[in-house]
Amino acid sequence: MQKDISTTAPSTTSGRIRHRKRSNEVIPEVGKANGTQLLVNDKSKYKSMLIRAYSSVWMIGGFVLIIYMGHLYITAMVVVIQIFMARELFNLLRRAHEDRQLPGFRLLNWHFFFTAMLFVYGRILSQRLVNTVTSDMVLYRLVSGLIKYHTVICYSLYISGFMWFILTLKKKMYKYQFGQYAWTHMILIVVFGQSSFTVASIFEGIFWFLLPATLIVINDIAAYFFGFFFGRTPLIKLSPKKTWEGFIGASVTTIISAFMLANIMGRSQWLTCPRKDLSTGWLHCDPGPLFKPESYPLPGWIPHWFAWKEISILPVQWHALCLGLFASIIAPFGGFFASGFKRAFKIKDFGDSIPGHGGITDRMDCQMVMAVFAYIYHQSFVVPESLSVEMILDQILINLTFDEQQALYWRLGEILQQGILGKS
Amino acid sequence: MQKDISTTAPSTTSGRIRHRKRSNEVIPEVGKANGTQLLVNDKSKYKSMLIRAYSSVWMIGGFVLIIYMGHLYITAMVVVIQIFMARELFNLLRRAHEDRQLPGFRLLNWHFFFTAMLFVYGRILSQRLVNTVTSDMVLYRLVSGLIKYHTVICYSLYISGFMWFILTLKKKMYKYQFGQYAWTHMILIVVFGQSSFTVASIFEGIFWFLLPATLIVINDIAAYFFGFFFGRTPLIKLSPKKTWEGFIGASVTTIISAFMLANIMGRSQWLTCPRKDLSTGWLHCDPGPLFKPESYPLPGWIPHWFAWKEISILPVQWHALCLGLFASIIAPFGGFFASGFKRAFKIKDFGDSIPGHGGITDRMDCQMVMAVFAYIYHQSFVVPESLSVEMILDQILINLTFDEQQALYWRLGEILQQGILGKS
Repeated sequence: MQKDISTTAPSTTSGRIRHRKRSNEVIPEVGKANGTQLLVNDKSKYKSMLIRAYSSVWMIGGFVLIIYMGHLYITAMVVVIQIFMARELFNLLRRAHEDRQLPGFRLLNWHFFFTAMLFVYGRILSQRLVNTVTSDMVLYRLVSGLIKYHTVICYSLYISGFMWFILTLKKKMYKYQFGQYAWTHMILIVVFGQSSFTVASIFEGIFWFLLPATLIVINDIAAYFFGFFFGRTPLIKLSPKKTWEGFIGASVTTIISAFMLANIMGRSQWLTCPRKDLSTGWLHCDPGPLFKPESYPLPGWIPHWFAWKEISILPVQWHALCLGLFASIIAPFGGFFASGFKRAFKIKDFGDSIPGHGGITDRMDCQMVMAVFAYIYHQSFVVPESLSVEMILDQILINLTFDEQQALYWRLGEILQQGILGKS
Repeated sequence: MQKDISTTAPSTTSGRIRHRKRSNEVIPEVGKANGTQLLVNDKSKYKSMLIRAYSSVWMIGGFVLIIYMGHLYITAMVVVIQIFMARELFNLLRRAHEDRQLPGFRLLNWHFFFTAMLFVYGRILSQRLVNTVTSDMVLYRLVSGLIKYHTVICYSLYISGFMWFILTLKKKMYKYQFGQYAWTHMILIVVFGQSSFTVASIFEGIFWFLLPATLIVINDIAAYFFGFFFGRTPLIKLSPKKTWEGFIGASVTTIISAFMLANIMGRSQWLTCPRKDLSTGWLHCDPGPLFKPESYPLPGWIPHWFAWKEISILPVQWHALCLGLFASIIAPFGGFFASGFKRAFKIKDFGDSIPGHGGITDRMDCQMVMAVFAYIYHQSFVVPESLSVEMILDQILINLTFDEQQALYWRLGEILQQGILGKS
């Protein structure tokens, strides 16, 4: 993210040549040494901004529609993004010459991709799938059976890909093939590592997916505009287009937005309720104390003609502040990493799927860092104790037979009895 | 594994030059084309065998002692092996010239290593740790608190390493640094991926760790000897020292050993009982139906003077056959993979820790493939339904407070009541 905080139109600059700054201000040494000049006034950059804004509006519109359609569609969107990312990344280190001598070698990448997909989504969605099909006994048995052997099935698929790889190793191509094998694994870890967290967050309540994702977009856009209008001081050598002005302006904007957005999003049950099956129907739940508004009186110095005498704050807004802090300070490192990577391998963008933005991967760099954090934060600091009772109860009802459930009930009863006797 | 199924002393051959076969037999075309000759009679190879046998005896002796000492010591052994493997692999793609310009860069590898270690072992050992310290309330609270934030702690460590990496990126070294970063991650996945399965197996009962590991060692030794004495037909181009004779002889030996070893190991409670805490005391348990001997009468054609009239078989022996099949047919692909990797990067061994064997990594290639399979097999096909009740009960007692346990008890009671009413 924050890719073009302040600068010229990529379409008019070739490679590393940048337009010179026209104002008289002294340019910091670092910028000069790198041959990269920051600029505030340039006409051509407005064209680039327009293209970029146009794509952005389409993307945001589509995103809002998908959010409205529900959990399954959001998951489908994540999957589509993943496939595009994997395709961009698979193509990155390929050499057409070598590939021509290795028929079927690309297919192996996708074999591993779909194995990883089955593994990750199988784990996350299986419990919900069981909840969805409980009415049909035959289907229920089939699904439960498949879930029991889910790990073995995925492992078998992986091992067959592993053997396929070894049996198709070709003399003189070893190094290329092992390089590609390692690269495929790195891609799958990056792509599925983050997406498994993303999808898990979605089903915990769209709020926990939507807020972090939105914050990254806001941080990105804000950094772009602050950099565009005020950018002067280079931030990091890795990406010369990023400026301290963009970074700080974006941070403030993001943290304020986090606090305000959480108040708005937190009032919709569609966003806050967890989803325990795979249907797309409306959601009703008790969203818990985090989403119950609390009133705070405004301080006395507010003029008396002001309409509001108190403000209503959801406790979740304090959590949102943490997410905002992370989104604006740590998550941009995902972007720095991507910039560094692109420099290391001398590529400009990961792809060209989105006009003005580059590839999908270019837009996802900070999202990935954020998605992992958001899920871990949610699990560690947000999930209330009482919810863990629900989770274990779910496990019992899904994984155990009726007889086993009864056995567990009796055993637990005995143990609790002893506990009470021990206390009294 | 099966690295030197049949051949000369590595110490007397330099690189790819091998001793010529002296017998008159026709050598298969493949072997000739590769410039690698298999040989059956050669004095010098006996010296190599002796060195190798000597190291092997020491290793096996140490191993038996550690098995006797208990779960914690076995885990410690796994950790030590991991550290050696990681060291060998970290050093593999390093270039001293580049490292000199990047002070502290190696430290970053070990930072990631210990983060991964904390993450993996924290997950596996935390439940057992809680079970161990229940008597001391202060310690209990401290440990429970740490476990609750285990994921966040590991994530913070990882992210700080990630930021450290980005902030120390040095111009002109980008490609080397990103390459090393990817390589570090691959190593950590290989090393910790398998070891987490290994350690999980150990605590399920040493049997489930010891039998698979032993089978790989047996398969390795048998392949060595069958290849040594009968090896003629090359098996796979990747490693010219491996022969079909070694492969088939080893497979038969391994499968028979699996069946017999399971009978012996399955009778010791020290090996079969799961360990639920971190103490090293003696174990008593009901090992379950898998380890209860069943008598089968011997067929009528056995001569009547034979002492045994029936044989006693443990049901777990049938599972052992599956492990044996995997150990002899699929696991060797781990060895092929390692051979291919070594060829791709033109290295002879991963290290030189064990005289006659090469590095620790050279001895662990098939063990790693096997360990993952053994755990997944155990979880999918062996863990009986009744044990899952125990596991969930453990979870309840460890993760929930007393009040939550009671709440769960009441909720479950209500639901079961409804189930019974629904049935009648």
